[in-house]
Amino acid sequence: MSASRQNDDDDDDDPSVLRVALCQLPVTNDKAQNHQTAREYLNRAANQGARLVVLPEIWNSPYATAAFPEYAEQLPDVLAQDGDGHTGVYESPSADLLRESAKEHKLWIVGGSIPERDDDDKIYNTSLVFDPQGNLVAKHRKMHLFDIDVPGGITFFESDTLSPGNTVSHFATPWGNIGLGICYDIRFPEYAMLLAKEHDCGILIYPGAFNLTTGPAHWELLQRGRAVDNQCFVLTASPARTEPPSKAGLYPHYTAWGHSTAVSPWGEVIATTNEKAGIVFADLDLSKVTEMRTSIPIGKQKRTDLYQLVGKS
Amino acid sequence: MSASRQNDDDDDDDPSVLRVALCQLPVTNDKAQNHQTAREYLNRAANQGARLVVLPEIWNSPYATAAFPEYAEQLPDVLAQDGDGHTGVYESPSADLLRESAKEHKLWIVGGSIPERDDDDKIYNTSLVFDPQGNLVAKHRKMHLFDIDVPGGITFFESDTLSPGNTVSHFATPWGNIGLGICYDIRFPEYAMLLAKEHDCGILIYPGAFNLTTGPAHWELLQRGRAVDNQCFVLTASPARTEPPSKAGLYPHYTAWGHSTAVSPWGEVIATTNEKAGIVFADLDLSKVTEMRTSIPIGKQKRTDLYQLVGKS
Repeated sequence: MSASRQNDDDDDDDPSVLRVALCQLPVTNDKAQNHQTAREYLNRAANQGARLVVLPEIWNSPYATAAFPEYAEQLPDVLAQDGDGHTGVYESPSADLLRESAKEHKLWIVGGSIPERDDDDKIYNTSLVFDPQGNLVAKHRKMHLFDIDVPGGITFFESDTLSPGNTVSHFATPWGNIGLGICYDIRFPEYAMLLAKEHDCGILIYPGAFNLTTGPAHWELLQRGRAVDNQCFVLTASPARTEPPSKAGLYPHYTAWGHSTAVSPWGEVIATTNEKAGIVFADLDLSKVTEMRTSIPIGKQKRTDLYQLVGKS
Repeated sequence: MSASRQNDDDDDDDPSVLRVALCQLPVTNDKAQNHQTAREYLNRAANQGARLVVLPEIWNSPYATAAFPEYAEQLPDVLAQDGDGHTGVYESPSADLLRESAKEHKLWIVGGSIPERDDDDKIYNTSLVFDPQGNLVAKHRKMHLFDIDVPGGITFFESDTLSPGNTVSHFATPWGNIGLGICYDIRFPEYAMLLAKEHDCGILIYPGAFNLTTGPAHWELLQRGRAVDNQCFVLTASPARTEPPSKAGLYPHYTAWGHSTAVSPWGEVIATTNEKAGIVFADLDLSKVTEMRTSIPIGKQKRTDLYQLVGKS
């Protein structure tokens, strides 16, 4: 927290409460339209006092494996970052939008995810995080690809066009460390445990687009489970559910579950919504993390003499 | 499965469906009374077709740390077992009751738990499992002791009198491997993951006595979370909730949450109850384990190149 930012905004002085906004955007096949929508939602979130805003998984492109190569952009990289928040050569109107909005509104932006094309022409499902100065502070490539085949339910193979990331992603803020995964990453307890335990995260954020089979069954359960097991806040942002176009589009229509949600370390749903477009606001009382970890001290009680989760990254 | 047992009961031929009974016993300070209750519940469960019966945590003693040394018994050990199901020298009317009932009714009995005194005078919270021949097939000493202090909620320190166990406990049945923990063990994802992944368990069983603070908040959530994360059935059996005696007893009264429950690998509650005494029956369709693990193959999708849970026992 720099002195100049403290002068700008006294709310910075309180590291114990964080107002977050989970933006449940309606996503279309029109990237320019999606950009305009994202700008509007970021403006609204900032105007209503959010300090950290989360966009949904794949907010600039239809959620269809065949679409990802077309909508993919060349994204900046955290390591190459210089003092101006620029990060070497890249070409990404979507990343530019996030960075500009972060600076304009002095927001932390967890930029949902967008399809990324790297130098080897591989495609990733990637989340960028910008701080209020417009610096890129984290870049997460979805680590566990969504390849499932539920008979009578949903079949989807992200690995048709996507490559998986290899990074356990987290970033430091005035409210403590925050861990970042994307959608299907939430199904893997190990990932959340590494973030909470090894990297001391008190908040885990998963932009995600569950579907009408796994959404009602598991979306909230997984969030509440990760929250209680890791004694941390869990935040999700989904695209809004949209109707299939009246005539078949270029890509199969994906029907998102919606229900962007914030869960407390005690496992309570503290804010949520239905499937419609909108913004979910929640005020996170960070003292709840310490309170939960002190009263039910499972972190210290783990039997590391008998088992241990080992991170290799 | 022996030929003689097949002759006795044709149900043995179907390894894909298992009828279980979760016995929510009312537990008193009177061990003889508790024994009689347990016998009655085991009889009723067998008469209604159960093949595997689960008793609650601490069913022969009040759930009070000060009571455990008084009620503790010297328990048999799996390793010393001979062909008759006898296991060296021990002195345990509670274990005898379980073994006799298992043989009499040709039942698998997961004997909840009882306080155990070992040769060094240490006390454990221990579960014994008997097969339908009366053989002791598993012995689990609660590995994570229930030491919590929730302000305005509950304070309890099992470690006042108990020592922790060191065994990842499981046993083989015609319905596949079954993993066993006790109550607070369920809060540790690592333990369930070792059972499901390293020891190929399709059913996890946790006799448990949650309380009125953590019960409503976490009891069902933890069971559904373990089920979905490990794609297995989860079974729990709690003592029934009983009223405090009209005049203060020798030991503090523990008010159990009840709600013995069976959860499917998809995370659905397939059978449950309220806080009152009774038996919960559930028919487990074991094909659901394979179905879940095939349709959402997270077991194969874990990024063992980036993280790994290592068992050390």
